[in-house]
Amino acid sequence: MKPLEFWYSIGSTYSYLTIMRIGKLVEQAGVTLDWRPFSVREIMVEMDNVPFAKKPIKAAYMWRDIERRAAGFNLPVKVPAPYPLADFDRANRIATLARQEGWCDRYTLESYKRWFQQGIPAGSDASLAEVLPILGQDVARVVDAQSADDIGRAYSEATQEARERGIFGAPSFVAGDGELFWGDDRLEEALAWHSDT
Amino acid sequence: MKPLEFWYSIGSTYSYLTIMRIGKLVEQAGVTLDWRPFSVREIMVEMDNVPFAKKPIKAAYMWRDIERRAAGFNLPVKVPAPYPLADFDRANRIATLARQEGWCDRYTLESYKRWFQQGIPAGSDASLAEVLPILGQDVARVVDAQSADDIGRAYSEATQEARERGIFGAPSFVAGDGELFWGDDRLEEALAWHSDT
Repeated sequence: MKPLEFWYSIGSTYSYLTIMRIGKLVEQAGVTLDWRPFSVREIMVEMDNVPFAKKPIKAAYMWRDIERRAAGFNLPVKVPAPYPLADFDRANRIATLARQEGWCDRYTLESYKRWFQQGIPAGSDASLAEVLPILGQDVARVVDAQSADDIGRAYSEATQEARERGIFGAPSFVAGDGELFWGDDRLEEALAWHSDT
Repeated sequence: MKPLEFWYSIGSTYSYLTIMRIGKLVEQAGVTLDWRPFSVREIMVEMDNVPFAKKPIKAAYMWRDIERRAAGFNLPVKVPAPYPLADFDRANRIATLARQEGWCDRYTLESYKRWFQQGIPAGSDASLAEVLPILGQDVARVVDAQSADDIGRAYSEATQEARERGIFGAPSFVAGDGELFWGDDRLEEALAWHSDT
């Protein structure tokens, strides 16, 4: 079976719920996962799809909804988390590097935990100083490497691949037959679909 | 127990799934329902919250997602349904009248069935000609009554009540303690919450 593609951007709020849950769910389903960081921000700006900025009532609901859903999943959460992320691109360029080097899943999980449980913005100096050493990664080396052209190209190419799959939001899941699912509340449906392909 | 408030606009696409399911679900839960038609369009335009018009990729996903969800619920569906509705306001003004007269739920259900199963736009002459007689309602009388000032006022007041509850989309559900849930995929959660209040 091909891996289930998990398209995400560090910076998406609902993705906290997915990132905290997906490891166990794919294990139970016997599915492997391909972690695909990309820039959902670039695509959403292109589409004029701006769900929360300048929409305070919808944003307030989003935080309450995440709080309720987290409680339902027995996940700790401190809302509202800092939003939007100042270091959105750096956070995702590091994820792009991490994917190449094999520590993408743990980096993403540890970054989200600090962002949504302690209020430390993902991709910030404070976050990197805590997260990278846990993963055995040198902060200066990673910060330098993520700024290099090859990582910029890989990040852009991933975003282009996301576009080609019809992705317009995060988290998104692409099953083995190309079927697209969007949103944490479609995670179980995506896994079931993928397992049938 | 207070009734669960069900805020909806005929014209919302995902509401098809809710309107086809909610009758049985509230009966199973022993919950009564207050059907509250309002103008989600007016609120969404105010908030510059335009999810599908001018967003073709997101709209294409929405239709596919509704098709998949309908299949999962064993509901017939023909997508894409005509969208947006030309007679949005008339459809909801009639629902406002129907609420006063006690035939709101059946009118909404029959209108959605024709819209999403046969491609007959809700609120259109063709839809009203089929739906109203089933409910024992005279078409000319209803079309005349929905255009009267008192129905316009009741429709505006309902929309204002929706605003005051923090509603920004449809379908929305307000539990007995005021807790707000948005979207067909929160229907079960709203029912469970409401039953605990």
